Amino acid sequence: MEAIKNFDQLVSHLSSLAQRRRVAVAFPHDHSTQEAVLMALKEGFIDALLVGDRTLMGTVFEPYSDHVTYIDAHDAGEACQKAVALARNGQADVLMKGLVNTDDLLRAVLSKTDGLLPQGRVLTHVTCAHIAEHGDQLLFCSDVAVIPHPTADQRREQLKYILNLCRTMGIDEPRVGLINCTEKVNAKHFPFTVEYTELIAEAQRGDFGACIVDGPLDLKTCFSPEALHKKGIDSPLEGRADAIIFPDIQAGNVFYKTITCFCHTETAAILCGPSVPVVLPSRGDSPKNKFYSLALASLTNA
Amino acid sequence: MEAIKNFDQLVSHLSSLAQRRRVAVAFPHDHSTQEAVLMALKEGFIDALLVGDRTLMGTVFEPYSDHVTYIDAHDAGEACQKAVALARNGQADVLMKGLVNTDDLLRAVLSKTDGLLPQGRVLTHVTCAHIAEHGDQLLFCSDVAVIPHPTADQRREQLKYILNLCRTMGIDEPRVGLINCTEKVNAKHFPFTVEYTELIAEAQRGDFGACIVDGPLDLKTCFSPEALHKKGIDSPLEGRADAIIFPDIQAGNVFYKTITCFCHTETAAILCGPSVPVVLPSRGDSPKNKFYSLALASLTNA
Repeated sequence: MEAIKNFDQLVSHLSSLAQRRRVAVAFPHDHSTQEAVLMALKEGFIDALLVGDRTLMGTVFEPYSDHVTYIDAHDAGEACQKAVALARNGQADVLMKGLVNTDDLLRAVLSKTDGLLPQGRVLTHVTCAHIAEHGDQLLFCSDVAVIPHPTADQRREQLKYILNLCRTMGIDEPRVGLINCTEKVNAKHFPFTVEYTELIAEAQRGDFGACIVDGPLDLKTCFSPEALHKKGIDSPLEGRADAIIFPDIQAGNVFYKTITCFCHTETAAILCGPSVPVVLPSRGDSPKNKFYSLALASLTNA
Repeated sequence: MEAIKNFDQLVSHLSSLAQRRRVAVAFPHDHSTQEAVLMALKEGFIDALLVGDRTLMGTVFEPYSDHVTYIDAHDAGEACQKAVALARNGQADVLMKGLVNTDDLLRAVLSKTDGLLPQGRVLTHVTCAHIAEHGDQLLFCSDVAVIPHPTADQRREQLKYILNLCRTMGIDEPRVGLINCTEKVNAKHFPFTVEYTELIAEAQRGDFGACIVDGPLDLKTCFSPEALHKKGIDSPLEGRADAIIFPDIQAGNVFYKTITCFCHTETAAILCGPSVPVVLPSRGDSPKNKFYSLALASLTNA
């Protein structure tokens, strides 16, 4: 499989697969969730399990009635629980948030008795971005939204998830940069840079399969061979990273907000860790954003 | 004075002033420093005090010999000390780094006996950026390069410097956003957000003169009225910030590297805190970058 370079290719690839993913949507009662689900139905890569109040959905999903199942839920809370139960019982391959509070859905996902997070797994967030100014390629990063200050163990899981996602997208030997403001290990001010060296050693001895992991590197030396050269730094990534891991949520969030505010960027995002990928868009996301996230989640699990 | 919107306007404004700034350049023996100084000489807003080995400079500065003074220094270390001494003795208004190590110049600047940092002052870094995708305006931020984890007191000084710089650039009532990954104060994970509320209270009671300070805000709600509206947030900045303060160097550095890697961005930067502004470019900076930084430093002190 060739590497998928943009979201159109991702969608084409999904549509070409024989198998549809079963998506449980918790309370699909807002316009942008409905639009995203309709796009995925139109492309033919999902079956939708719509957990909500059918009377409120009208005839929106009628054109795809062969691929839509309605499951009654009278309020958002009940919808969260029922949607999570569908995934838990193996009846859904992907979970998607509709018009529910993030906290309510996460509570249902994280429930120790009825949730979706196997013991010992780390819940974290992966973003996939297509930045026009960076050429035709997808760029992956973690974590811009969930873990405030990753521990070394949590960061190891972030790395594993992102490697897995890159490989699913056809990148056989993913190149991952570990971000810091400089290229120097600095135990005093930035103890995570010491943890970086341990992760790199583990990667080099093959713990994570075929991959190239390097750091600490700044964002520019990860993505610009020219910047790397100017700084006179040797890096096996050669300024051509597929993915980056941020030191913490503040750095990650600034990156995400900067590329979506100032660049021509399309993004998708999923929660990793639960037994099925979770599409958990934020309020500002457009229908297309949500659709791409649904596509990403559908491939991840395909 | 109307607000300066881009670096061309900054240069024109400087050239229109009667007074030239006296710039002490420590070891101007690299091409990009020489180019930057030549551009400023050509525009006519500086007199250059070239601290280095005259024989190495050849005839480069000859066209501007009326506005150039050579001061002998046999090595980079001596050049740093002599350039700092010129500023300390009131013979230079701006200090600029040439082909010297950043550490050597900073050591001379920070020397308690012969340096430039008055007791109690905070040394920090301010960046000024023109991001084409953001329209024709300058955007200020601090600190992408110097203070790893600002204390509340250091952040107050960052705010004061950035307000001062904005006003020097003709923004009478600067609008400053205090960055966090969300708009919520979070004492547990992000204690600096509590410090933000104190800064805002001080700003509101007039401690910093005319200004509008708000936060915690994410980067997008600072710069996009649409993002602010979508999130349903009220902010006196109305998504039209002139400047932002980052929680720490990691977030700041990611911002700086992202806009210079993925956007069409021109930048200038100076060190604030010392008794004269210091131009301390990094290795990757182009002659134009250095020239703009020199212009920013020259206005700051004009």
